[in-house]
Amino acid sequence: MTVTIKDVAKQAGVSAATVSRVLNNSGYVYEDTRKAVMEAIDRLQYKPNEVARSLYKRTSKLIGLVLPDIANPFFPALARGVEDKLQQQGYRVIFGNTDSDATKEMDYIDTFLQHNVVGLIASVDRLHHEVLSNLRVPVVTVDRTAEELPAVYADHKSGGRLAAEKLVTSGCKQIIVLRGPQDAKPLYDRFQSAMQYLSEKNISVNYIDCQLSFEDGRQKAKELFNQFPNTDGIIACNDLVAAAMLYEAANRKRKVPEQLQVIGYDDITISEIVHPSLTTIHQPTYDMGIKAADMLIKLINNEKLGTIHEQLPVYLKERNSTVNGGI
Amino acid sequence: MTVTIKDVAKQAGVSAATVSRVLNNSGYVYEDTRKAVMEAIDRLQYKPNEVARSLYKRTSKLIGLVLPDIANPFFPALARGVEDKLQQQGYRVIFGNTDSDATKEMDYIDTFLQHNVVGLIASVDRLHHEVLSNLRVPVVTVDRTAEELPAVYADHKSGGRLAAEKLVTSGCKQIIVLRGPQDAKPLYDRFQSAMQYLSEKNISVNYIDCQLSFEDGRQKAKELFNQFPNTDGIIACNDLVAAAMLYEAANRKRKVPEQLQVIGYDDITISEIVHPSLTTIHQPTYDMGIKAADMLIKLINNEKLGTIHEQLPVYLKERNSTVNGGI
Repeated sequence: MTVTIKDVAKQAGVSAATVSRVLNNSGYVYEDTRKAVMEAIDRLQYKPNEVARSLYKRTSKLIGLVLPDIANPFFPALARGVEDKLQQQGYRVIFGNTDSDATKEMDYIDTFLQHNVVGLIASVDRLHHEVLSNLRVPVVTVDRTAEELPAVYADHKSGGRLAAEKLVTSGCKQIIVLRGPQDAKPLYDRFQSAMQYLSEKNISVNYIDCQLSFEDGRQKAKELFNQFPNTDGIIACNDLVAAAMLYEAANRKRKVPEQLQVIGYDDITISEIVHPSLTTIHQPTYDMGIKAADMLIKLINNEKLGTIHEQLPVYLKERNSTVNGGI
Repeated sequence: MTVTIKDVAKQAGVSAATVSRVLNNSGYVYEDTRKAVMEAIDRLQYKPNEVARSLYKRTSKLIGLVLPDIANPFFPALARGVEDKLQQQGYRVIFGNTDSDATKEMDYIDTFLQHNVVGLIASVDRLHHEVLSNLRVPVVTVDRTAEELPAVYADHKSGGRLAAEKLVTSGCKQIIVLRGPQDAKPLYDRFQSAMQYLSEKNISVNYIDCQLSFEDGRQKAKELFNQFPNTDGIIACNDLVAAAMLYEAANRKRKVPEQLQVIGYDDITISEIVHPSLTTIHQPTYDMGIKAADMLIKLINNEKLGTIHEQLPVYLKERNSTVNGGI
């Protein structure tokens, strides 16, 4: 016969609501009452549901997720992956947006710990890895690599090379690379490997520094078309910037891909929606979220990890902003 | 002189780490030790930080946020608004994606309550309002209206009318309305009021049912251009669908806005990025998040609300997919 909350209440001489308050750790309960309820639970071998049990054991099922900005189109798919995986395993996600600000990063981590998170998934730019290494719960970093910490990230060295290779095999001779902020390792890796490939192939190349927003892309697109009017290939640091290049090309009646080929990075939703649709390097963003959650759950359960650095493959997604099938 | 955690530890005859465990409710602490620490805190009038204090008082600073899908481009800005406001007030957000599935909606609400949330912000489609009305914490619904529940939403009746009015004053004579799912009140309201305006003005109008995705938009765009080749104005149910119309128009070399005007709804990021940029009805999505959080905090603090239904204004955002300034 299954023991119910009512049996516990009867045994302890309290109401079911009181038992529930004790289990849920909600509302005030006298310490004596709490003890009586706990004893009744033990005696009857009552099994409350997972979450209630974890509260009883004074461990939580909460995981902290620290992201730069959920409104940046790269992160929602990542957050969704994290949440889908954790939800299946009975965990719940607290999240915070840091705007890559060191104080906010630290604040969130502090208060998440005060809320008894049992693990953290962090995409942080400013915190020293030492801070993250010395927390009392396991941490998995995502989209950022650190020698010492468990990390899930995409293979940006291949990504940069794939983008450059695509434009070269499609016949581009005058390439401009939009270079994203170089203090972020994913952006450094993809830029360096694209440049290296182009230099090996003796292709004429210049680069322009660019932030990761559509707005800055618009600005830099104007500079680019004025300064380098013969450009026939553009490697953008992300899809938003690539979309800005397409926008300015349309304004100037430059035909894409006939006169100008453009390649993005990330494969966010907009890459399908712009016209022509954008050839890009696909990052497995949702899967990165899944993998990070998976790795964290293993760490929480003290399971052995095969590797602490999980590098996921990227691939070239050909759409209509490049000449497909090469020349 | 400020009392520190060390003073409390000395008074209670334990280590600072033990005091911290008691305050943070983390790790196992003997009940006697816990009592000694609490007594020392009382005697010394030690003031731990907000979160630790709320745990001590056995209330939490957690708020549950239930959304259909963070990966849908409408919701990240809303979530960001909610989180920014709550963060300022020392609250933290647990969130879940329901895919508008009734079981998931109920599951999240249950487990969030088990995690001691002190309030909920919910954008739910399937749950009966009775369920939400009878929870033991306050609930604010967002983007959905319900007679009985506190709600924050945009003025979709005006939105639908504004869209129709814009196309009529810009000279459109043959209008197609893409009708979104009519079981969602925001979509019902905007469709009905657009149709009413058009019928008052005796404009020739047809409608086509359409889901809210770019993919379904692509499908319906093909039908539309085949079935109604003389269409000169399209009112889309959201920006993704409007983007699909622009995409198909470009494929068919229909000039926008000269031969065909298109208007979207929401003003998500892509509306700026597509070419031509999209005229749309701007929803104050981020502000809806802020307002919902604000209303919930008031309810938690038992403050009086001026109104339980907060309707925010929308406005016409003119870009390049319509003839601007009218005809």
